[in-house]
Amino acid sequence: MPVKNTHTSWFSEYCPESGSTFSLETTAKLHQEQSPYQTIEIFESRCFGNLLVIDGFIMLSSRDNFIYHEMITHPALFSHPSPQHVVIVGGGDCGALQQVARHQGVQTICQIEIDERVTRLCEQYFPELCTSNHDRRVNFQFTDAIEWMRAAGSNSIDVIIIDSTDPVGPAEGLFQKAFYADCFAALKADGLLIQQSESPLIHWQTITQPMQNEMRAAAFNHLKTIFFPQPVYPTGWWSATLAAKNQITFGREDESRNLNFKTEYYNHAIHTGAFAVPAFLGKL
Amino acid sequence: MPVKNTHTSWFSEYCPESGSTFSLETTAKLHQEQSPYQTIEIFESRCFGNLLVIDGFIMLSSRDNFIYHEMITHPALFSHPSPQHVVIVGGGDCGALQQVARHQGVQTICQIEIDERVTRLCEQYFPELCTSNHDRRVNFQFTDAIEWMRAAGSNSIDVIIIDSTDPVGPAEGLFQKAFYADCFAALKADGLLIQQSESPLIHWQTITQPMQNEMRAAAFNHLKTIFFPQPVYPTGWWSATLAAKNQITFGREDESRNLNFKTEYYNHAIHTGAFAVPAFLGKL
Repeated sequence: MPVKNTHTSWFSEYCPESGSTFSLETTAKLHQEQSPYQTIEIFESRCFGNLLVIDGFIMLSSRDNFIYHEMITHPALFSHPSPQHVVIVGGGDCGALQQVARHQGVQTICQIEIDERVTRLCEQYFPELCTSNHDRRVNFQFTDAIEWMRAAGSNSIDVIIIDSTDPVGPAEGLFQKAFYADCFAALKADGLLIQQSESPLIHWQTITQPMQNEMRAAAFNHLKTIFFPQPVYPTGWWSATLAAKNQITFGREDESRNLNFKTEYYNHAIHTGAFAVPAFLGKL
Repeated sequence: MPVKNTHTSWFSEYCPESGSTFSLETTAKLHQEQSPYQTIEIFESRCFGNLLVIDGFIMLSSRDNFIYHEMITHPALFSHPSPQHVVIVGGGDCGALQQVARHQGVQTICQIEIDERVTRLCEQYFPELCTSNHDRRVNFQFTDAIEWMRAAGSNSIDVIIIDSTDPVGPAEGLFQKAFYADCFAALKADGLLIQQSESPLIHWQTITQPMQNEMRAAAFNHLKTIFFPQPVYPTGWWSATLAAKNQITFGREDESRNLNFKTEYYNHAIHTGAFAVPAFLGKL
């Protein structure tokens, strides 16, 4: 049984590239384990709900994950004219999967997560994110996404959502041309991919642009970046990159205007506004 | 002479309402003084340039203040059809003043800052923000803005920019109906006001909404909120509130599309996108 702290404890994450540390008051450490792939910790915080921490980095909090999960899914799913077959790479916490399942037209959701322990722990500590795990359209594959994508049928997927950790450790290959080329082949002609692409302020030149160059090298000629807040990530400001075989349009704009499910962050105006590129990034 | 640290020091700011602490690595403490109004500190940080800290709270960093300063000025100035007479309340660091001065149609800029020491120290430690301090259109008044606004001529101001500290201490009255009523009287018929309105995630119900209610009580019937990142502020996500006597439109949209000065964050798409209200705030 976790022991509740009677005094304040802190979880702290140091970000060397911005010379900053973000710390949250914690009231209990709920779990810690070493999986075959990474160290997984779960904390209870005083103001941000539970925290999922992998290899020392905050992956999500109960309080603000809604922004990330809605923005890693709905802008791509409402851009695609008719998303039926969706693949999630990573996404072990199941928050992205839950958002995808809200789209009634989606027929299959395949989630390729290398570390089953992340999903099992999130079912226990973040049950509010796991409400669609037993949806009949969902297929979990706990395996290496790079190998899975290499073997995926060509022209078989409408939308690929890459909801991974940073490009170090197990996720490194998910930011490279060879993987993107396999994604490109697996996508149908009007298919598109979205991937989290780090902080616009501190990672643009070191991660975001190199990642986008790898996508272009894999023949994704149509890229757009979206921007959104994410308070528990370094700088509190995050991005995701959309990559399409063909042009990126607002294919289901009417459906976005008239959402048939509840959201906490996403709506039609947010979708449109998220594509606005700050002046300094347009110049780079 | 400040002593350069050979080991890492930190400046830390605790935010009780979010149970979080944001810390930046510092390489030197450049200045500290107690003015008649507040404690002012200036640090040199490893990755964010210089920091201005007042009463323990980070006011700005060299690295990311461009977002705040462009967003506290340009959305209001491009919304107004023809801003000629601008008053800045607070703004002692002169970063907002610098942005206002970029608008060639502006004829007078009056800055009402209670604490002259803030401005003098920023001239020394943030000279890049103070390049317009000697612009012939600029008039500094180091006095209490509440009294100044009470005595201001009615129908004399086009845009009021309230660039203040949080609503505790000297700035408390700047968030209250009596002050807003004086602003309302001082504004011309198509005048508008903009004020920083804290973090959408953690201050909406405790500061932003009460502030907007005070504005409405002072007869500002047209309010809109804009949203933007600000990494050194709690949650990294910030807001400002526009309040107008009449409706808020995009009065100088063509000029915003064809900017005749350089910006780092603001542009036409950012202006439009900043007004998108996240779903959870629309419900509140």
